[in-house]
Amino acid sequence: MSPPVVTFTSDFGRDDWFVGVVHGVVLQVCPEARVVDLSHEVPPGDVVRAAFLLEAAAPDFAPGTVHLAVVDPGVGTDRRALAVRGRGQVFVGPDNGVLEWALADPAAAAHALTATRLFREPVSRTFHGRDVFAPVAAHLASGTTLEAVGPLVRDPVRLPRPRVVFEGGVLQGAVVYVDRFGNALTNLTTDELARAFPRAPESGLEARIHGKRVVGVARSYGDAPIGTLVAILGSSGRLELAEVGGHAASRWGIGVGDRVTVTARSAAG
Amino acid sequence: MSPPVVTFTSDFGRDDWFVGVVHGVVLQVCPEARVVDLSHEVPPGDVVRAAFLLEAAAPDFAPGTVHLAVVDPGVGTDRRALAVRGRGQVFVGPDNGVLEWALADPAAAAHALTATRLFREPVSRTFHGRDVFAPVAAHLASGTTLEAVGPLVRDPVRLPRPRVVFEGGVLQGAVVYVDRFGNALTNLTTDELARAFPRAPESGLEARIHGKRVVGVARSYGDAPIGTLVAILGSSGRLELAEVGGHAASRWGIGVGDRVTVTARSAAG
Amino acid sequence: MSPPVVTFTSDFGRDDWFVGVVHGVVLQVCPEARVVDLSHEVPPGDVVRAAFLLEAAAPDFAPGTVHLAVVDPGVGTDRRALAVRGRGQVFVGPDNGVLEWALADPAAAAHALTATRLFREPVSRTFHGRDVFAPVAAHLASGTTLEAVGPLVRDPVRLPRPRVVFEGGVLQGAVVYVDRFGNALTNLTTDELARAFPRAPESGLEARIHGKRVVGVARSYGDAPIGTLVAILGSSGRLELAEVGGHAASRWGIGVGDRVTVTARSAAG
Repeated sequence: MSPPVVTFTSDFGRDDWFVGVVHGVVLQVCPEARVVDLSHEVPPGDVVRAAFLLEAAAPDFAPGTVHLAVVDPGVGTDRRALAVRGRGQVFVGPDNGVLEWALADPAAAAHALTATRLFREPVSRTFHGRDVFAPVAAHLASGTTLEAVGPLVRDPVRLPRPRVVFEGGVLQGAVVYVDRFGNALTNLTTDELARAFPRAPESGLEARIHGKRVVGVARSYGDAPIGTLVAILGSSGRLELAEVGGHAASRWGIGVGDRVTVTARSAAG
Repeated sequence: MSPPVVTFTSDFGRDDWFVGVVHGVVLQVCPEARVVDLSHEVPPGDVVRAAFLLEAAAPDFAPGTVHLAVVDPGVGTDRRALAVRGRGQVFVGPDNGVLEWALADPAAAAHALTATRLFREPVSRTFHGRDVFAPVAAHLASGTTLEAVGPLVRDPVRLPRPRVVFEGGVLQGAVVYVDRFGNALTNLTTDELARAFPRAPESGLEARIHGKRVVGVARSYGDAPIGTLVAILGSSGRLELAEVGGHAASRWGIGVGDRVTVTARSAAG
Repeated sequence: MSPPVVTFTSDFGRDDWFVGVVHGVVLQVCPEARVVDLSHEVPPGDVVRAAFLLEAAAPDFAPGTVHLAVVDPGVGTDRRALAVRGRGQVFVGPDNGVLEWALADPAAAAHALTATRLFREPVSRTFHGRDVFAPVAAHLASGTTLEAVGPLVRDPVRLPRPRVVFEGGVLQGAVVYVDRFGNALTNLTTDELARAFPRAPESGLEARIHGKRVVGVARSYGDAPIGTLVAILGSSGRLELAEVGGHAASRWGIGVGDRVTVTARSAAG
């Protein structure tokens, strides 16, 4: 059998020892685990960005993967700690919305972490990543059942998800993430584009952002001249706005929350 | 048996190939080892910061863990190389104070690395992390005894440790580390606070830094309004000064070496 | 038998989830692999820097190591994807020169990646690191033969290599890499220096850069006073220019491509 995989996302950065200590705790509880870092460069407390990171990355992992997400500005308050079974995987983190993608699965089951025998004692006030989330994630990776970590929670904290609207031939969404390359990922998925414009070829679509028009969906970053703003179906199945050989977000002032619309070009257009 | 864990701390940064090559050398000597990165963002040559990183992180690892620390501005000179058994773990690094925490254990044993058959040959002049420290750490993780790496050293280089003084009801220490979140960690440990103020509840203590007064020790970052400077017992068992939802060190100009005092509030206070 | 080692170099940075997902894909195909990150901080699209990183790092890994290199500005265009056997190891990446060091081995064999059954389906247009290179690298680490990934390629893309010239007693090369410490690595190898100046001791050599003269090759960074520019034979077997206790590249304005010359000092000099 393959060794269990535990992914790890946080806002800890890599300057200090926090990430390494969490790896160490996971290995103490589940020595055969493989810990895979997603990102630790989430801005401090940015639950929304961490939630999107998990949404984008988790589908690329095998069923049964355990995802540990520690962006936890409320550590030490009475916010709950959760383990969620959803989307065929397991997610562990604070009850502040960071596990939104798992919770949006209608079949999701969320459990509060209350079985203190699974914790690392004594539990500090400020580092539940080390003392609560990591050991519980490692126990789950070792085969502990979700039911054993604590009782079902019926009202986990949910994040508002930016809406997608299709009205009068216009599909409207928003930028949800800007990556290192300056690509602006939207919440307009391949599926939603196909549903809204079932007959239009990709070259027949037109995106608009900040009043700027992008004609056609490119097949790759390399199709158009350097400096061109292109629309592309990115690797996580979402419409992205990118600049060929450049950084679209800084060049065009694009940020999370900005409105993006897509229309089909008329034959006469 | 669990695979051996080798932690790795350095000032190499992650832009170049140095960290990866050290991982590779450890795996060549001890293929079953799990290499856990603590931090590679120690500022070049900052032995004091690296020593504190080990002091803060090592207690969270299992007995027998091997800690590899390569902050080595004297590489290629005649500074010695050491392996130290202390605090129930093993530490490998240059003899420049970076292993201070292990050496401060009265039962510590320090050995000079002289058994060149454990090195990677030829030994370069500038990268003993790869050629000396990593292979020796991996041999130690594989079961080589400390005695086999070289002779006992009776005068390892020690770091001055900032003093804690309790006089006239005032406990005085210093900031020893500022972390990514801007939290200022002091050398005032939970134990020292309890010894100095055995009868005072945490809410009855008062900390001062830069003439600024912080009343009470908070239970978590989330207890006080955003922007408040709070004193908190942090995850490594030290008094920390933190700003709720902010970056205390930059907001209040706090740096390593700054004096911190703690007093008990009088009943009339 | 030791677990297979797969190194991973990219321009992905660590802010996003891309590096973690590639680790996950490798582990899905080859669960026993150990993935070692070399660097993910290659500037976006900087094929030349990534090629040098591999050239500098790969010799420190064991024979049979698989090196995955994803700096791929042409992703989604018709650039080929390659696996190269060279220098006793295996290299996987786009056909854009990033694998130059392996290809410069006269015995190298390059194969185009065409066996789509080894890919992760569906293959996206923008993330061949995840969908093509990582799974093929993992299959190769698992024992798949190079012949099974696709046909031989006779004209892989090659990088121009900066020339080394020895004329009139002057050995001339160039800076090829500047590392985190500000050390400027040249393409003048230990071998070439020995060939050009077989009778000169290291102290009898003299390097020049930007009209500045550096007398003698130092044995380590620590031999000369702080602030001195020194020439040193670095850990990857190349002449480096370094500032003792400082950052030579920014202090002296040294960059990649700058000309460096070495001469032997005359007895009268």
